[in-house]
Amino acid sequence: MNGEKLQSLPLGDIRIADTFWDKYIRLVKDVILPYQWETLNDNVPDAEPSHCIKNFRIAAGEEKGKFQGAVFQDTDVAKWLEAAAFTLASDGRDEMLESLADETIKLIGKAQCPDGYLNTYYTIQEPERRWSNLKEGHELYTAGHMIEAAVAYYEATGKDEFLKIVSRFADVICERFGPGDGQCHGYPGHPEVELALVKLYRATGEKKYLEVSKYFVEQRGVGENYFFQEEKGEKYQQIFPEFKDYSPAYSQSHLPVREQKTAEGHAVRAVYLYCAMADLAYEYQDESLLAACRTLWDNMVRKRMFITGGIGSSGLLERFTTDYDLPNDCNYSESCASIGLALFGRRMAEITGEAKYMDVAETALYNTVLAGIAMDGKSFFYVNPLEVWPDNCLERTSREHVKPVRQKWFGVACCPPNIARTLASLGQYLYGKGKDSLYINLYVSNETQTAINGVKCSVKIDSGYLDDGTVKINIRPEHKTTGVLAFRIPGWVKTYRVFRNGEEIKAPKEEKGYLFIRGELAQEEITLKFHIEPRFVHANPKVRADSGKAALMRGPLVYCLEETDNGSNLASVFVDTRQELSESYEPELLGGTTVIHLNGKKISDSHWEDGTLYQECETELTDIPLKAVPYCYWGNRRTGEMLVWIKELL
Amino acid sequence: MNGEKLQSLPLGDIRIADTFWDKYIRLVKDVILPYQWETLNDNVPDAEPSHCIKNFRIAAGEEKGKFQGAVFQDTDVAKWLEAAAFTLASDGRDEMLESLADETIKLIGKAQCPDGYLNTYYTIQEPERRWSNLKEGHELYTAGHMIEAAVAYYEATGKDEFLKIVSRFADVICERFGPGDGQCHGYPGHPEVELALVKLYRATGEKKYLEVSKYFVEQRGVGENYFFQEEKGEKYQQIFPEFKDYSPAYSQSHLPVREQKTAEGHAVRAVYLYCAMADLAYEYQDESLLAACRTLWDNMVRKRMFITGGIGSSGLLERFTTDYDLPNDCNYSESCASIGLALFGRRMAEITGEAKYMDVAETALYNTVLAGIAMDGKSFFYVNPLEVWPDNCLERTSREHVKPVRQKWFGVACCPPNIARTLASLGQYLYGKGKDSLYINLYVSNETQTAINGVKCSVKIDSGYLDDGTVKINIRPEHKTTGVLAFRIPGWVKTYRVFRNGEEIKAPKEEKGYLFIRGELAQEEITLKFHIEPRFVHANPKVRADSGKAALMRGPLVYCLEETDNGSNLASVFVDTRQELSESYEPELLGGTTVIHLNGKKISDSHWEDGTLYQECETELTDIPLKAVPYCYWGNRRTGEMLVWIKELL
Repeated sequence: MNGEKLQSLPLGDIRIADTFWDKYIRLVKDVILPYQWETLNDNVPDAEPSHCIKNFRIAAGEEKGKFQGAVFQDTDVAKWLEAAAFTLASDGRDEMLESLADETIKLIGKAQCPDGYLNTYYTIQEPERRWSNLKEGHELYTAGHMIEAAVAYYEATGKDEFLKIVSRFADVICERFGPGDGQCHGYPGHPEVELALVKLYRATGEKKYLEVSKYFVEQRGVGENYFFQEEKGEKYQQIFPEFKDYSPAYSQSHLPVREQKTAEGHAVRAVYLYCAMADLAYEYQDESLLAACRTLWDNMVRKRMFITGGIGSSGLLERFTTDYDLPNDCNYSESCASIGLALFGRRMAEITGEAKYMDVAETALYNTVLAGIAMDGKSFFYVNPLEVWPDNCLERTSREHVKPVRQKWFGVACCPPNIARTLASLGQYLYGKGKDSLYINLYVSNETQTAINGVKCSVKIDSGYLDDGTVKINIRPEHKTTGVLAFRIPGWVKTYRVFRNGEEIKAPKEEKGYLFIRGELAQEEITLKFHIEPRFVHANPKVRADSGKAALMRGPLVYCLEETDNGSNLASVFVDTRQELSESYEPELLGGTTVIHLNGKKISDSHWEDGTLYQECETELTDIPLKAVPYCYWGNRRTGEMLVWIKELL
Repeated sequence: MNGEKLQSLPLGDIRIADTFWDKYIRLVKDVILPYQWETLNDNVPDAEPSHCIKNFRIAAGEEKGKFQGAVFQDTDVAKWLEAAAFTLASDGRDEMLESLADETIKLIGKAQCPDGYLNTYYTIQEPERRWSNLKEGHELYTAGHMIEAAVAYYEATGKDEFLKIVSRFADVICERFGPGDGQCHGYPGHPEVELALVKLYRATGEKKYLEVSKYFVEQRGVGENYFFQEEKGEKYQQIFPEFKDYSPAYSQSHLPVREQKTAEGHAVRAVYLYCAMADLAYEYQDESLLAACRTLWDNMVRKRMFITGGIGSSGLLERFTTDYDLPNDCNYSESCASIGLALFGRRMAEITGEAKYMDVAETALYNTVLAGIAMDGKSFFYVNPLEVWPDNCLERTSREHVKPVRQKWFGVACCPPNIARTLASLGQYLYGKGKDSLYINLYVSNETQTAINGVKCSVKIDSGYLDDGTVKINIRPEHKTTGVLAFRIPGWVKTYRVFRNGEEIKAPKEEKGYLFIRGELAQEEITLKFHIEPRFVHANPKVRADSGKAALMRGPLVYCLEETDNGSNLASVFVDTRQELSESYEPELLGGTTVIHLNGKKISDSHWEDGTLYQECETELTDIPLKAVPYCYWGNRRTGEMLVWIKELL
């Protein structure tokens, strides 16, 4: 660590106007936030009531009734507020939205207990059991989302009411948890509050928040497993039946974090923890903690990550399994886990200045995170398979977690608002700002105001990143200055050309994955021409599930075959990977997209009578033209099969 | 139906002496029965106590204590007794074994309630909840196994004490269940008693047993689902948490049986029910019930059966899923389900005289059932995958049900004693005896006493069925007679020659899969020369999991690749199915077996650095010699990968 960390730019300074991303981002304000507001208020007919706002009203003494929903139901309100905050910051103030948010924050304040404790489940339902089940109770997880929302709202609006509310709750947490004799030596069953407390420290300057975050991370997996000790407590009561045969690795509490060498357990829990580890490594300039982050990252992205940036191979318990175990048709790969992966990647890139971390964040954002939301913003995938045969995704079977159709988001809703807040905060991924440097990470069209070396500076990106690979970047400082510009050269790029003010930079060289321009900076027009064309990608042969198969990619986008374009039984389709691939832009398809055309062969069933299951016969192949579309768009047309890894003619 | 049904021969009339089967059958008497006896009596150190005998002692008033084990724990004793009975019948009386059995039967008699009710769980633990939860309580299932054991013991020894005990219990059942006003209109959640009651009727001639069996079968799925009604009962209490979201199809109670067109739900439940349907179709000469059996059979074996005779594609709930959904690495394919399939097939063959039903029974017995037991008789598979990568069969993941190593049998022990009783009763599958006919179904070496057309007759089979395909059958009637001999021409046979007393029968023709010799029968030597050689078999291209793959078979045996012979990463191995296959006999291997040799190609990982997960590169193949062994023997050497469906070079 060099002691300095790149900073993302405030969302308010960035105006995104990008053909690819806009169609998703606008959904947040136009569709998701209004719709979820109605959901949180139980105003959607035919939808399961969320009960979220009602829970807060009951806790605030405004209504009578019982708590309803999951123990972590409050987080839906928190994520709604966070997404609203990001939207207010990005899109400019919107009175209607802001007043709904203010009203909600006021209600949250009233629902806070006199001592600062804040959680409607425990307040309404089991006040005597507060903090008695950290493993399953999700109080600290809920606190984390509240804190993140409050920090975002403060940054977006400058209003500090919510920040004060969560600070009071954070004070309660600081008092209760720590190494002291009278304190609880536990830590959350679901990491989240750790990264949130770092945000709160950064927003308030209050060091104790950072310290308790550090305590939670350092205490994890130390000594006799805390959660097993907890079970002996008088007030302890099990909440989730599936936690009966609890394995400490599930919550990354099997070892002290520095001794963890492989990504284990529930994937969302894992990446949220790793985010906090990275934050703390920076704040404390802790090289050993950063080394642990690197080790866990490497294991995860080199041995346990799907090509789409999905993580969590097991449907049961939504968890990591073993190296190279990446089944395509029964994986979990929760949308939230890929969001956490992107968050972790951004933190690592900011701390290390290494572009490879942003490569993975990009993969996760452009593929799995986007696949998680329908193009109309009204339905969502929690699980992101790479191969789907709708007929066998039957309820009450091993594959029941795999859904061939996106689900309405108003059940237990962790992914939908998580995707919403991620889309609304996309601007945070675009830049990294150092003392005298500006890193450009994602090539998303936008106009931004920032400063380089203290000199005000506007940046305008016109990105054809997903079109012809050409990205134009105009940088206009108020006056000449010196500084560093760094352009991420994505891992997928084999060749590119770069021009500075019309003049080609010959034999450009990258350091840590970035192309640097250093020295005097005036009005600069940088043009990056990334050579983009469809390509076949292979997986390490140790990945049994992908052996003898190839995936199609173009730029950062993974492509897939869908039944609607290619007929059914995609598992019987083969391709020769030595063929020339061609592409075309289809303006009417899926909001406008480049598709890949290729030639395939398909196993003929002409000599198979219906009802013959096994026989001796030759395998006959027939020609089939194939068309692939971006994976992120799958399932937006007719329900049918989908396939990423296509069998190869060998 | 012609009104007549082929009968299996009494086990006491058959002496099996077969190199392939003996090594398994002798385990029953030498290893399994003694070992399980100790287990049932909790005498095995380090083994989970079974508590079975103790439960009976407590119910009998001989000991104090609580019931322990599953609600169906009694069935372990029943299956032990049934396997013991079959062994006594087949091997001749063994005083030691018989006296243990007699002692146990006496104890069972003492544990029977004064009113005839028999079930240690409900007697000890919840006498007030008798019959309050047919869905999960397993009282009728347990009754069924008790009855089967009692009939077998009676047939083996002529002693009727046990038969009287179960008859008294059956009387209770007949009184309680039926269409009458005061009777319960329910049926078992786990079919089994239905087929047992038919056996009891046949052993005792008591028609009401047949009638209540018919009632259970006919009542199933009629009107409002009984199990849902039951849940409204006062005494009802849920037993198994996984039954919470109970779907009626799970227990084949979603429709009246004649309206069921597809094999649904828990596979063992399904085939046990179908066995009873076949039995009743015969007893009542009920064509529509037989038609239902044919429909369900066809759906099952033509669309939902693994090439090994395994059934039940879903690990969760051990159930059937949808047509052509036959995943190789996460299926259930319980050993008990294949036993039930063989039982159903035998019944259908006996009723219809069609050999195709025995083909499937043979497949199930020679492959999945045998794979279920280790060659030392001491460990067992419940789940029978067709592809195993031990590293990814991790506890607490979607694949935790798949075990790469056979398990000691003294946990919840349904499969081990079921395999034991099946091995001990193998003789029942060999022959079908009609009024004037003898059908020869399985080519297992044996000597048998029977009669054709009333004339005593000895049959001796010297079978090289799995060796060179030559089977010699000597039939020696006491004196000349007329009659019919029928020899099953297995479905896998493409060409064969047949000789009668040295003279070739030219252009032999089969009817219903059998070759018939009709007319005058003297001392006959029939020699069947089945052309046996290794072959590649394909699956219907609709089976996504097998698309672009081929399996190796030789005769009725499915072969597989094991890591110990072929190295790891079998998923990256390819074969050209146009190649000549060769075979050799290895006398030292796995008790002596024919292995198949073939040439393969394997994806090279030479240009893959450790830690590279995805990259653009050519797929390079290197030559690899491959050796395949019978699937039934897999997992008897070092733990490692196993693969049935091998990728094909296309």
